[in-house]
Amino acid sequence: MTTADEQTRTDRLIKWAVALKYSEIPDHVIQRTKDFFLDTLGCAIAGRDHPAVSAMVRFAAQMGPSSGKSELIDSSQNLTTSPAFASLINAAASHVVEQDDLHNRSIMHPATVIFPAALAVAQDLGASGQEFIAACVVGYEVGCRVGEYLGKSHYEKFHSTATGGVIGVAAAVSHLLKLDASQTLSAVGTAGTQAAGLWKFLIDATHSKQVHTAKACFDGIFAAYSARDGLLGPRDILEGPRAMGAALVPGETNPEAIDRNLGLDYAVVRSSFKWHASCRHTHPSVDALLHLMKKHGVGFDDIDSIRVPTYQAAIDVLGLSGEGDTVHQSKFSMGFVLAIAAKKGQAMITDFTEEDLKDTSLRAFQKSVKMELDERINAQFPEKWQGTVIVTCKSGNSFTESVEFAKGDPECSLTRSEIEAKTHALARYGGITDASKVDSLIKRAWNLEYETDVRGFFF
Amino acid sequence: MTTADEQTRTDRLIKWAVALKYSEIPDHVIQRTKDFFLDTLGCAIAGRDHPAVSAMVRFAAQMGPSSGKSELIDSSQNLTTSPAFASLINAAASHVVEQDDLHNRSIMHPATVIFPAALAVAQDLGASGQEFIAACVVGYEVGCRVGEYLGKSHYEKFHSTATGGVIGVAAAVSHLLKLDASQTLSAVGTAGTQAAGLWKFLIDATHSKQVHTAKACFDGIFAAYSARDGLLGPRDILEGPRAMGAALVPGETNPEAIDRNLGLDYAVVRSSFKWHASCRHTHPSVDALLHLMKKHGVGFDDIDSIRVPTYQAAIDVLGLSGEGDTVHQSKFSMGFVLAIAAKKGQAMITDFTEEDLKDTSLRAFQKSVKMELDERINAQFPEKWQGTVIVTCKSGNSFTESVEFAKGDPECSLTRSEIEAKTHALARYGGITDASKVDSLIKRAWNLEYETDVRGFFF
Repeated sequence: MTTADEQTRTDRLIKWAVALKYSEIPDHVIQRTKDFFLDTLGCAIAGRDHPAVSAMVRFAAQMGPSSGKSELIDSSQNLTTSPAFASLINAAASHVVEQDDLHNRSIMHPATVIFPAALAVAQDLGASGQEFIAACVVGYEVGCRVGEYLGKSHYEKFHSTATGGVIGVAAAVSHLLKLDASQTLSAVGTAGTQAAGLWKFLIDATHSKQVHTAKACFDGIFAAYSARDGLLGPRDILEGPRAMGAALVPGETNPEAIDRNLGLDYAVVRSSFKWHASCRHTHPSVDALLHLMKKHGVGFDDIDSIRVPTYQAAIDVLGLSGEGDTVHQSKFSMGFVLAIAAKKGQAMITDFTEEDLKDTSLRAFQKSVKMELDERINAQFPEKWQGTVIVTCKSGNSFTESVEFAKGDPECSLTRSEIEAKTHALARYGGITDASKVDSLIKRAWNLEYETDVRGFFF
Repeated sequence: MTTADEQTRTDRLIKWAVALKYSEIPDHVIQRTKDFFLDTLGCAIAGRDHPAVSAMVRFAAQMGPSSGKSELIDSSQNLTTSPAFASLINAAASHVVEQDDLHNRSIMHPATVIFPAALAVAQDLGASGQEFIAACVVGYEVGCRVGEYLGKSHYEKFHSTATGGVIGVAAAVSHLLKLDASQTLSAVGTAGTQAAGLWKFLIDATHSKQVHTAKACFDGIFAAYSARDGLLGPRDILEGPRAMGAALVPGETNPEAIDRNLGLDYAVVRSSFKWHASCRHTHPSVDALLHLMKKHGVGFDDIDSIRVPTYQAAIDVLGLSGEGDTVHQSKFSMGFVLAIAAKKGQAMITDFTEEDLKDTSLRAFQKSVKMELDERINAQFPEKWQGTVIVTCKSGNSFTESVEFAKGDPECSLTRSEIEAKTHALARYGGITDASKVDSLIKRAWNLEYETDVRGFFF
């Protein structure tokens, strides 16, 4: 509790965010922001024909304007609308194929909410590439700090990408709208009182995951535009009685995450790429398994069973989807993902198919995989997302392999050529047959800070 | 927990809702629905110029279509838009002046979300008065049952009008869209994963209360229209791990509220009118005080101090707004509301003014009022909203008065002529100078079941 004159942690975070200028952002942060922006465009193209996205396109057509300055990702040509609806759809699309980034400490996927919202609003306002980048850096920072503040016990029930994400969106959009600190606090307050998103959908493979990212954008844009137009939000929606921490966190919060090392430690460069096309909780184990198989010359058919010591959140989230009746659900089954990786040598987007769901060898392998809580790994999560597999072969041999970081983690990040290759794969998956179009998209992304506007990124 | 073949409580509730036909609804339920509909129109007119509403009108103008089939309440003439935006604004407007209804058991204000959403969608679809009434009965029933299920401990942190409300809206809109049980379950699931709304705003008198009702409408409409267009929501968003009960309720839920006595016990006829223009938690005490003053001939200036034994939720909610720096906040101060009632003999909408905030006699009276927890009253809340005041006079005399029900409670409801008088007062407050316009509004409301469409209710 603070008096009116005392600064809250939320005050300090928002003052920092409002003051941030493009010229003050370190170059490696700018470069990584562009990496994730391109990565997100690829994800959105790959997911654009999903039924959840189509339902939202239809909603936008019925409830929104028939044209506008913001571009809508869709297979049909040249669709435009208002920024709230464009971001709704693009955020849904970019979260479908489970290839968007992960901010480890907050257990959030910031890219899929921050970029669609900031892009749609930047297009609406005619903002430059530099203004767009600065807003995205702000959105990552504010959103991920809130996610980390809400912490592990929040994540057990809530999809933090939505609950932290809506705050990040409000901050990013406020930056583009050039709101002052008081208005931005209102925007963040209004965003926080809309924060929602439950994991319940994992049980029956339904579309809430896309709803969460879509609505985080819409609701955050609502919060920021309304704040500009006089709507007052609570001054500190994060801390104190009946704030997000009190209402949405059954266990401990991490208050210091809100305002420690502002400007010294950027969330963007602590975010990870997804290399495999499955739930991020499977990635360290996939990497460990692939290393093990290569190191010891073990093949798919040689494996009798696998034990996977892991952290509690992986067991919680992956435990909800059962055997995986759909392609999307199968990406949340540790056993099925390891089966795919072991059989195909990789777990890329094209490696998960309807046929694979009926493959009895994959299903038998899946059943032989058992997750178990490892207290040492759990204690370091989400600071570190470690993976260990203990493989017992049919021959009787047993091997163990651990990875401290998964491929794509900040400590083990993707190269630009790997990002480009991933983008090409995502675009092909999304039906783009002309690779030269993808090449020019890549070129624009790498030169984003020189763009005078950010229109024409979808096709 | 249930297997796939077992019916959940949510299944039973939704099957009942989908099957409900206008012809099966008892006449007293229909009549009371019309009462609350008219009451809500009055509330919306009275609140339409509030800054929170203006900010949302601006948001709708920027993000929504410039015209549509749904009518927007606004002082400017003849505004129309899509149903999602019309309901956003009308719901915000109808919750501003604290005169909308209260469903006692669920501690929810159903009217301010159910009517704006159902009206906007009925206008969009060209639905009849009877279809509109049936959808509202469904919305009340589903929303209030969910609010009662979430219960008292939920209400300590969350504005149940929003969290139960969004579910009620999804059910009402699904009924108008004639969705089947499976689609309606999806709509309700998608609504529930968006459920949000924190009491934090009471501390600094900000606009979240209107955001909550506005967004409950928008989000519920999103859920229902998207469900029709193929978006799948979780099958049981109410019960089970990571559902609303598990994530949003720190204490006990009331599961039996979900599906007991379906079709036998209607939420609409268990809802209360607000007669006084203040937070509903002050009403039983206001009634007790007014009775006491009349019975014993006690005047405003005779009173030295008042003790108010009450239930915990009243202490929690009313304790947040401090002394009441704004007119809106002052309606959440037990002391200030009792002061107004004692001095003016009533606490109607025109009885709370900026001047009153500076009245030192009111402020001194306010300070002499002390709430205290009464375990007997608390144990019966929210089944009964009882009020007791213990008045000590300057003469040394002391009097006690209790009311079992407040004026407006189902057991002590308003007459049609009282409702008409209240509507005229609300419309005058909202700037309607032509009383004959209000008379024709009233006439249409009383004949709602004979209307072939529900257009033209706002002006």
